[in-house]
Amino acid sequence: MTRECTYAVAPNIAFIKYWGATDLDSALPRNASISMTMSECASTTSVRCLEPGQPDEIWLAGIDGLVAAEGAFRDRALAHVERLREYAGVDHGLAVATRNNFPAAAGIASSASGFAALTVATLGALDKEVPAAELSVLARRSGSGSASRSVMGGYVQWPDGEDAEGPAVQLAAADHWDLRDVVVLVQQDEKKVSSLDGHRRAPSSPHFERRQELLPDRLAAVRSAIDSRDLAILGPVIEEDAIELHLIAMSSRPPIFYWLPASLTVLAAVRRLRDRGVEAWATLDAGANVHVICAPAAEEAVVAEMENLDGVHGVLRDRVGSGPKRLDRSLFAVTSS
Amino acid sequence: MTRECTYAVAPNIAFIKYWGATDLDSALPRNASISMTMSECASTTSVRCLEPGQPDEIWLAGIDGLVAAEGAFRDRALAHVERLREYAGVDHGLAVATRNNFPAAAGIASSASGFAALTVATLGALDKEVPAAELSVLARRSGSGSASRSVMGGYVQWPDGEDAEGPAVQLAAADHWDLRDVVVLVQQDEKKVSSLDGHRRAPSSPHFERRQELLPDRLAAVRSAIDSRDLAILGPVIEEDAIELHLIAMSSRPPIFYWLPASLTVLAAVRRLRDRGVEAWATLDAGANVHVICAPAAEEAVVAEMENLDGVHGVLRDRVGSGPKRLDRSLFAVTSS
Repeated sequence: MTRECTYAVAPNIAFIKYWGATDLDSALPRNASISMTMSECASTTSVRCLEPGQPDEIWLAGIDGLVAAEGAFRDRALAHVERLREYAGVDHGLAVATRNNFPAAAGIASSASGFAALTVATLGALDKEVPAAELSVLARRSGSGSASRSVMGGYVQWPDGEDAEGPAVQLAAADHWDLRDVVVLVQQDEKKVSSLDGHRRAPSSPHFERRQELLPDRLAAVRSAIDSRDLAILGPVIEEDAIELHLIAMSSRPPIFYWLPASLTVLAAVRRLRDRGVEAWATLDAGANVHVICAPAAEEAVVAEMENLDGVHGVLRDRVGSGPKRLDRSLFAVTSS
Repeated sequence: MTRECTYAVAPNIAFIKYWGATDLDSALPRNASISMTMSECASTTSVRCLEPGQPDEIWLAGIDGLVAAEGAFRDRALAHVERLREYAGVDHGLAVATRNNFPAAAGIASSASGFAALTVATLGALDKEVPAAELSVLARRSGSGSASRSVMGGYVQWPDGEDAEGPAVQLAAADHWDLRDVVVLVQQDEKKVSSLDGHRRAPSSPHFERRQELLPDRLAAVRSAIDSRDLAILGPVIEEDAIELHLIAMSSRPPIFYWLPASLTVLAAVRRLRDRGVEAWATLDAGANVHVICAPAAEEAVVAEMENLDGVHGVLRDRVGSGPKRLDRSLFAVTSS
């Protein structure tokens, strides 16, 4: 019998960003962060148990079938598979196939969803029942800190300080507040500076320490806004925090410019929408794509405004999601049929 | 006899920016600033003495002749004429005609050159011999702080603290160091938030105070770089300071976005030039246009790189200039002929 498990896990969009680590190897953040787990964008990952002695395999599932993963991604995936195998106390090889339905490494948290999916699918294939809190910690150990948030649905906080070594915590389930996330794609290729490099350089910004002082109030405001479902409170804070992440990046040594020209086009369009009374607020992770957060009633107006802007390649309609979904289909089956 | 005087005065490009005031009405800055006075861009202003009792006139000299100035510009110009008349101890009316040969209010210091030109031309028309230091103080009282730097040529520092009430000081004459300024125009219309509003909001940025701590070292580095004509020292510091001005603007409450999408296109192109070994560094005042500072030998490469970028309307070739120039021609004569 082939033991196999497939999960689809959504990325998350951070409302308050994790930027800068106290221990980058263990993905321990300098500051607490809060995110909304998405729904439609997803990393889908199948993990299959191999016979003892067989080496691990890491595959990217593309439209032409499976392609062997290479480079840094392969190395990070293999290291995480090894970590999960040790955790589960098994010794046989594992085959992994994974794909994203959204552009990778462009400011949508593809490493968050990818490593969260690898974590839950591997433990599923190994028939280990693991509580969500434990999954969160395991996912974080992949090195992608925000993976700790993507194993949970809804609105999620990842604490700082000593609590950062523990799990992320769900602040509210997805059905608490139906927020939409219109992802405006202005970059389809990989960003030039990885988030890991960005975290590494963040403390070199002369404005980094000041950011730390500002965050507790912002985190409290976001928690309160989620609690009371108040977009008029949430919006300005998340836009401010997103811009600050980029201010820190641009003032790091050497500076990092994640924004593309069209990122500014989109930010200006979001402000125009608000001038017209449409409650929509922008946030960007460490990349050029812009997430526009709004209520369901505003989604059509946001999409219509964004679709035809110069430099916009496409628009993804997403929303708050309820967390990892186990699927019956397999990425191995698709391509070996 | 009609007493009349015409001057052409260049704007200046700040290497370390004046951003935020201790007393905005008197244009007293929170921090010292250093600039290079330009040469080719200019505000040309003619001032003519009228008969006693005749009211002041403020004219804009355009291609179709003289047009009466209106609005805030007219009010500021009239107030400054009154100030200069009191200083000179005369009581007759003055007619002013002025024009810029570059786009106004778009991040080239048009108010600096305009009010500096108004100052020197008015005192010239009144036959007052005024030393440069005194002109600097008078020009500043127009409310355009950086006008205090444009009455001098070369490299100019405007001090902070109590010394800010005194004149700007020439650090080095234009012939000390032949730097070029390729002005890349991405915005030809007026910026939406004036520099005065920007100064007013600057202290609301949570990163403003930290900027004050960083400036003394930056000012010292720029002075030293000018002294030793060292572009490799000057360049990174001026680019860092320019980006910081915009970080402060974007984190002010409410935030100010002076950059246009093409500003980022140009900043990226300047980094590409450096990757190819061309020593060129970008700076922006409070606007979207980008000034690319380079040595004479690099000017052609810079212009060639910038001319065809998306969103670039044009390129102005400028350089360090030697200060106000008295002209024989009159803006009144041109249009009354």
